[in-house]
Amino acid sequence: MSDRRIPVALLGATGSVGQRFVSLLAHHPLFRLTTVTASERSAGLPYREATRWVQATPIPQEVADLVVAETRPPLEPRLVFSALDAAVAGPVEAELAGRGHLVVSNARSHRMEPGVPLLVPEVNPEHLSLLRTGTGRGRGAIITNPNCSTIGVTLPLRPLRDAFGIREVRIATMQAVSGAGIPGVSSMEIMDNVIPFISGEEGKLETETLKILGQVDMEAGHIRPARIRVSAQCNRVPVVDGHTACVWVELERVWSPEAVREALESFTAEPQKLSLPSAPPHPVVVLDGEAHPQPRLHRDVAGGMAVTVGRIRRTPTGELAFVTVSHNTIRGAAGGAILCAELALARGLVPGTVAS
Amino acid sequence: MSDRRIPVALLGATGSVGQRFVSLLAHHPLFRLTTVTASERSAGLPYREATRWVQATPIPQEVADLVVAETRPPLEPRLVFSALDAAVAGPVEAELAGRGHLVVSNARSHRMEPGVPLLVPEVNPEHLSLLRTGTGRGRGAIITNPNCSTIGVTLPLRPLRDAFGIREVRIATMQAVSGAGIPGVSSMEIMDNVIPFISGEEGKLETETLKILGQVDMEAGHIRPARIRVSAQCNRVPVVDGHTACVWVELERVWSPEAVREALESFTAEPQKLSLPSAPPHPVVVLDGEAHPQPRLHRDVAGGMAVTVGRIRRTPTGELAFVTVSHNTIRGAAGGAILCAELALARGLVPGTVAS
Amino acid sequence: MSDRRIPVALLGATGSVGQRFVSLLAHHPLFRLTTVTASERSAGLPYREATRWVQATPIPQEVADLVVAETRPPLEPRLVFSALDAAVAGPVEAELAGRGHLVVSNARSHRMEPGVPLLVPEVNPEHLSLLRTGTGRGRGAIITNPNCSTIGVTLPLRPLRDAFGIREVRIATMQAVSGAGIPGVSSMEIMDNVIPFISGEEGKLETETLKILGQVDMEAGHIRPARIRVSAQCNRVPVVDGHTACVWVELERVWSPEAVREALESFTAEPQKLSLPSAPPHPVVVLDGEAHPQPRLHRDVAGGMAVTVGRIRRTPTGELAFVTVSHNTIRGAAGGAILCAELALARGLVPGTVAS
Amino acid sequence: MSDRRIPVALLGATGSVGQRFVSLLAHHPLFRLTTVTASERSAGLPYREATRWVQATPIPQEVADLVVAETRPPLEPRLVFSALDAAVAGPVEAELAGRGHLVVSNARSHRMEPGVPLLVPEVNPEHLSLLRTGTGRGRGAIITNPNCSTIGVTLPLRPLRDAFGIREVRIATMQAVSGAGIPGVSSMEIMDNVIPFISGEEGKLETETLKILGQVDMEAGHIRPARIRVSAQCNRVPVVDGHTACVWVELERVWSPEAVREALESFTAEPQKLSLPSAPPHPVVVLDGEAHPQPRLHRDVAGGMAVTVGRIRRTPTGELAFVTVSHNTIRGAAGGAILCAELALARGLVPGTVAS
Repeated sequence: MSDRRIPVALLGATGSVGQRFVSLLAHHPLFRLTTVTASERSAGLPYREATRWVQATPIPQEVADLVVAETRPPLEPRLVFSALDAAVAGPVEAELAGRGHLVVSNARSHRMEPGVPLLVPEVNPEHLSLLRTGTGRGRGAIITNPNCSTIGVTLPLRPLRDAFGIREVRIATMQAVSGAGIPGVSSMEIMDNVIPFISGEEGKLETETLKILGQVDMEAGHIRPARIRVSAQCNRVPVVDGHTACVWVELERVWSPEAVREALESFTAEPQKLSLPSAPPHPVVVLDGEAHPQPRLHRDVAGGMAVTVGRIRRTPTGELAFVTVSHNTIRGAAGGAILCAELALARGLVPGTVAS
Repeated sequence: MSDRRIPVALLGATGSVGQRFVSLLAHHPLFRLTTVTASERSAGLPYREATRWVQATPIPQEVADLVVAETRPPLEPRLVFSALDAAVAGPVEAELAGRGHLVVSNARSHRMEPGVPLLVPEVNPEHLSLLRTGTGRGRGAIITNPNCSTIGVTLPLRPLRDAFGIREVRIATMQAVSGAGIPGVSSMEIMDNVIPFISGEEGKLETETLKILGQVDMEAGHIRPARIRVSAQCNRVPVVDGHTACVWVELERVWSPEAVREALESFTAEPQKLSLPSAPPHPVVVLDGEAHPQPRLHRDVAGGMAVTVGRIRRTPTGELAFVTVSHNTIRGAAGGAILCAELALARGLVPGTVAS
Repeated sequence: MSDRRIPVALLGATGSVGQRFVSLLAHHPLFRLTTVTASERSAGLPYREATRWVQATPIPQEVADLVVAETRPPLEPRLVFSALDAAVAGPVEAELAGRGHLVVSNARSHRMEPGVPLLVPEVNPEHLSLLRTGTGRGRGAIITNPNCSTIGVTLPLRPLRDAFGIREVRIATMQAVSGAGIPGVSSMEIMDNVIPFISGEEGKLETETLKILGQVDMEAGHIRPARIRVSAQCNRVPVVDGHTACVWVELERVWSPEAVREALESFTAEPQKLSLPSAPPHPVVVLDGEAHPQPRLHRDVAGGMAVTVGRIRRTPTGELAFVTVSHNTIRGAAGGAILCAELALARGLVPGTVAS
Repeated sequence: MSDRRIPVALLGATGSVGQRFVSLLAHHPLFRLTTVTASERSAGLPYREATRWVQATPIPQEVADLVVAETRPPLEPRLVFSALDAAVAGPVEAELAGRGHLVVSNARSHRMEPGVPLLVPEVNPEHLSLLRTGTGRGRGAIITNPNCSTIGVTLPLRPLRDAFGIREVRIATMQAVSGAGIPGVSSMEIMDNVIPFISGEEGKLETETLKILGQVDMEAGHIRPARIRVSAQCNRVPVVDGHTACVWVELERVWSPEAVREALESFTAEPQKLSLPSAPPHPVVVLDGEAHPQPRLHRDVAGGMAVTVGRIRRTPTGELAFVTVSHNTIRGAAGGAILCAELALARGLVPGTVAS
């Protein structure tokens, strides 16, 4: 039997997020990983030797023997995932888009560019229309995956905005060390400790959220940011995987905890309607336990693609408060980007394919 | 040489907080620990055998051999510290106060009672005047030490209120496991995890803060709570000692980060003026590091009696934000209670003594 | 379609090991969990309410609604798994065996009894012949699952003994907290710490290993212990799941690291030949990484049913040294016991069934 | 009052071990830190800016303002501590010794050189006689501090050898992350994990121990290694500070656990007789608790300069077994090196001084 899956390339395949991409693409029904790239130092080695594998599942056999290419054009696959560091992602992603590739990137380099969708497939699938306006760098284009903590927060915010309107949001995150990659956070710094600062992270949460919840302005070819005020305080905690966030939301219209719960639980969107392979049945799962959600117990709900929410309540300040947990390297990185690509494929945005 | 220190008793001496009291009282210049109590099961044993000591310093020699008494009257010392669980503290503390003891308690049982001061010596020393009004249960009285996380937050709030006025406060805590005592939090629950719930904790922060920042109404014999709205989200994190809190404060008057810093750094109060033995030189220490304060690095500043504050800034929501770390079993429990007793002694409130 | 699986009961279903049994039995092809028991306090409640579930996967739907029975006869299923604490396991397991049940127990109570197999299915399947001799307590019987750390060590020892003979074994374990159950080890005790003592554990490793590697004496109706000397030093470390052991083995015959590797990798036994559902393809998996195996990376190899071994080498003392990791609550507890039952079923030892 | 303390330099002052040196030298009665060096990148900056300080106590005021020098001659102080990485330590230490400095080094570069003492002051003070033989590189010399885990193990081995003779030693270590410096071990690698390999560590334990316990051969100008066989298995565990080791010792003569205890407790040596400032009253402290010693509870015994030992017992293999904990960055690094220098100073080996 011939393998009719679409060949894909993965830039930055040996890092922490790159390894997650490799794991998640292992048995993907639509995509086949045929090209892995890394820095010059690793190029020419088989992937198994080029990577310091730290996933709990072994390297997929068909990837282990791929010879690592250097991260630069030309690349054969038209669909390219990028797990590059922001330090190097910018120019190479732009060049690949210019050569006609669709680049789905987890790096921050192009996230805030006007013509580039910052996509959470259930939250703002309509932003993909930016790519049809010709602002998408020739036939190729870039789609960016938001910051890991932004994804976890915007998923519950979308149904809340639709149902009740949102005025202000305050977020205190407790983020896992895997978000910083390998070597990332030194054990000397984080063991028996909290680090109440992650460089650039608060700004990302505060600005990316507004773009994601914003409106497409087709004439201007960009997104008008949502008129919401967001304040974030970001902390690193001694957790391997799974970001936790305490959220306060000041809503515009009358609400009750029950109505909030109903809005979150009933939320589905285009990825669910299209039954995309990586789409969780419910993107937001509400938990009842008084001390839930917790990262170790709930980061893997729906294979790490759903966000869990608990402790929905009204505070003495009159706001909605809740706690949310999301898997930062699955939904918040590799898995989220793969879902973006699945949506793009379904819409016919992958060069050389047509809408399904 | 005769030892002229005042004899003190310690109720609940074998638990986690009790052990901290024992350590901190070891070489105290004013107090001499002569009586230790515990449950019936431990009574009659030497302290060294009755306790499962988990402090990093050894049991002080003069305490190791004390025979543990049962937790009930009569007790010889007029000054009594209580490290009892709330489950048993209420009646025995009340009975001791009725018999003329001054009970300085770390338990929550009497905290919200009208005539009982909820004391942070630098924040509301004037609340001790409640004891002079005759509401103090005969000649004896109860002074209560607030919840560990409340103490850490009210210390910076007092100078901020004085300088700028406070309208609303939002707090997300990341609390150490030592706050739950021994055995306390199961390692199976907290390792590689965050538990976003601590029973009763959010309510304590939201109500105790208002009492502490409230005004004495001498006629009514109680405290009029401050008109501030406080909302807390409390989390347990895998840290041994030291509570971290991300705080948002909506101030009433014009402020700047520099003015806030100045207000915090210049804050001193009665314990500093009186040079009480356990009083830190500065109750609030402002740190400059972009990722400070951190519990492992800063919980022991000023012997664990100062609160550290960092990351003072203005948020997109227009509020003041900062991060604070305090040692939950020193300033937030045993050390805080000892400082309460030192202040009471200086004011002549310890039965059988006069004001210094 | 009718469900032709054999109904099974689970004693002590709400604890840590009990929860693992529930998870692993969820979609078992041969067994159907129909009866769950717990202490009097939980009896009568639906399982979902009686248990404080801490597994990363949700409670299987068909178990969540089972009403918890009290742990005592009569029980309907003829095959009974026991996840009871040793404190209560002894009499109730004996009574059930006397009433004709086959009890497969994870408790230590009956492990060292003469007529009771202490079974690691790949290591000493021949010990099941004890049950045919009539020493097996009437028609019913007890099969015991060894201590979690014993299982992980005996799996590689069996092929080594067959190939090279064993004179002495020294073992230093680094054991996960899940082995102590819930609440088990206090976080105050184990965070940022090693506890170099686990009550009774070293003795279990030192004696159980000899019974498991011993010979059936059919006339005497017991096991003659192996003539090996074993010394263990057992430590608790801050790891959630997965026991690591450093092992020194003094072999009797000529050996080389390559020959050891070959002996371990080629080892298969009756469970593999019978293709039992829970049997890993290779019970011992040898890893090449210079710093492997590691509990977080390798505890789940073969679904947690294989033992991983690495760092095979000759020491300056002339011995074989290696490191082994095994999943203490899967292969070392619930999964190991289920594999015991699968083997017993295949041999026709489950009352009311015949050999397959 | 003039400060009559001896000026000292510290090479590699900004790293993890360097910071410990700075802390421990802060109020040293004999030495005054006047020169701190680091790599070219940091040279010229005040120490406070050049270092990423991670100690729980603040930077000593008199060091904070020192301007960092580059790590190369000339240096003013005749006594030089080296906290350099082995990668750069070798040539610069040799050059400084050649220029007449006494270099007390924590790096491994010169440890196994014939004329260089590998010194644990209580264990082999007689090895300093090597320096008098003229093998000490001119008037200057190098004294090396052993590997952190070697120090912890040789301290109890010395009195055991004297009392009972030693044939074989097996050691399984569980080592803290601080031993690897900053950034050192990635949190992604060690959280919820054990890493059963530390590059080069086992070899160091196996060979350094033999040199330390060896005999000076004055004619040959080197140390004849002890005729003992040592085998080590080294593991990294999630502990911040404090190395734990499980040790098996095959003794040559008749022994009992009580006699072992007596030998360890009564052990003192030249540093104690000379009352050197950093010498602990007892270099080996025996603990009675059944689960002691533990790194978090006992690493700071005697200011981190004593080794604690517990669980002394006879194994089924007929050996002595015990558990030991030592502070790897105090006794095992900076503190140990300072004690070496104190002994050298007392013996008149510091250039420009005479024996006290």
